[in-house]
Amino acid sequence: MCELLGMSANVPTDICFSFTGLMQRGGKTGPHRDGWGITFYEGKGFRTFKDPSPSFDSRIAELVQNYPIKSCAVVSHIRQANRGGVNLENTHPFTRELWGQYWTFAHNGQLTGYDQLETGRFKPVGETDSEKAFCWLLNQLDARFPEIPQDCDAMFALVAECCDTLRQLGVYNMLLSNGEYVLTYCSNNLHWITRRAPFGKASLIDEDVTIDFQQETTPNDVVTVIATQPLTNDERWHKMGVGEFSVFHLGEPVYSRVLESDTSGEKKK
Amino acid sequence: MCELLGMSANVPTDICFSFTGLMQRGGKTGPHRDGWGITFYEGKGFRTFKDPSPSFDSRIAELVQNYPIKSCAVVSHIRQANRGGVNLENTHPFTRELWGQYWTFAHNGQLTGYDQLETGRFKPVGETDSEKAFCWLLNQLDARFPEIPQDCDAMFALVAECCDTLRQLGVYNMLLSNGEYVLTYCSNNLHWITRRAPFGKASLIDEDVTIDFQQETTPNDVVTVIATQPLTNDERWHKMGVGEFSVFHLGEPVYSRVLESDTSGEKKK
Repeated sequence: MCELLGMSANVPTDICFSFTGLMQRGGKTGPHRDGWGITFYEGKGFRTFKDPSPSFDSRIAELVQNYPIKSCAVVSHIRQANRGGVNLENTHPFTRELWGQYWTFAHNGQLTGYDQLETGRFKPVGETDSEKAFCWLLNQLDARFPEIPQDCDAMFALVAECCDTLRQLGVYNMLLSNGEYVLTYCSNNLHWITRRAPFGKASLIDEDVTIDFQQETTPNDVVTVIATQPLTNDERWHKMGVGEFSVFHLGEPVYSRVLESDTSGEKKK
Repeated sequence: MCELLGMSANVPTDICFSFTGLMQRGGKTGPHRDGWGITFYEGKGFRTFKDPSPSFDSRIAELVQNYPIKSCAVVSHIRQANRGGVNLENTHPFTRELWGQYWTFAHNGQLTGYDQLETGRFKPVGETDSEKAFCWLLNQLDARFPEIPQDCDAMFALVAECCDTLRQLGVYNMLLSNGEYVLTYCSNNLHWITRRAPFGKASLIDEDVTIDFQQETTPNDVVTVIATQPLTNDERWHKMGVGEFSVFHLGEPVYSRVLESDTSGEKKK
């Protein structure tokens, strides 16, 4: 299995604190030794740092922890390989262009029977179930919306439906972003927290680091962090339900869909 | 204008020495202050480091200079912006997937009348003439070869033709790679050198650094470096002719096409 980390913020924000926690799980406090990656959006562009070697002693991961790259949308992943070899082409996140936007994807879980997914013009380069699922998802979006959709809700609804389909094939926790929105899907393990004024302090679970967000922020900052497991032990993280799909925009939850069988369900906009 | 740097090698080789020379031109010995990027292939995967700020004082460029990432195919670029703002989405190299391969592109030059290029399903994200040309080129390849071509020479010939067309729109020096081949096109400025045993010493033009390749290599290593301008002052670089198209594979030139009006022309395989 793997761990996911995502961020959505209303001002460019660095993710050094959360990333430091996650990276310890890449072979030190956690078993995810088979590579890691992180994608930062800046405007319509992005940059990805990735490495098929363990994150906890990676020179590149060290740079990312210490060099504050500020972004409004981040997708990150550490890997414990199940499908596909340990190499760069199988290392998340994956990025492809659709509608003149870069879409970035990371997956936690394992699928079976994914060979039959039709990916059309989006051909996987590596051998993972995850990249195949991503290509299939983009192909579904492309088929339904040949041009960039004006109705974002319709697009979100289709992504949620596709995620439901993929969950039928196994465990499917997902982060997906086009740099503006961060889309999340929970199969069994995904948590999120929104930090806003008044900001407090927080301590990492995986490393002896405490941060005082008040020192790092302005009163109008809104930052949501999404992670497989909570990264701090002194804040209240929301656990997502089975089949819960949420979209974050500029730090705020803007769209959510829970399965009807989940009694806590309501759609909010 | 900009500067290009590419490498093709028969064993995974680091490009720290050449990259160190190029980076000085990013705002120190050269005027290319508007960003830089480098893509390393490793197997079918790749990683790109890029920054819209000047390379000579970039923390990330410093990492790339000092952390030897070994690769058989590299594409790098430093930018002096003409078309498109100074931001990440306009920073070369650009990478897109075609035929289940990642293709990476960098361009030196300036085009006019490029708005009319039809890019089909490959939609530019930024505003540069370069990314538009890349998308058009991929669309031409995709239209002619819906599946991965078995006849590489036919594919190379089409790329050369496309480059000729783009050169009609202005200055078009290009590096293009799918991780296996490094394809080059010269409009007015491109040089290359192949290093093989017996290896000697070389000194950078832009920085007081000398390397003894014999200490860094094994006798069977073959490494070709392609650059806008020679990077060393004590080796013989080949200057490419106008309209010259060459392909390098595992460090060796494997395909070349010069224009008929160029009397030095011959096609070699």
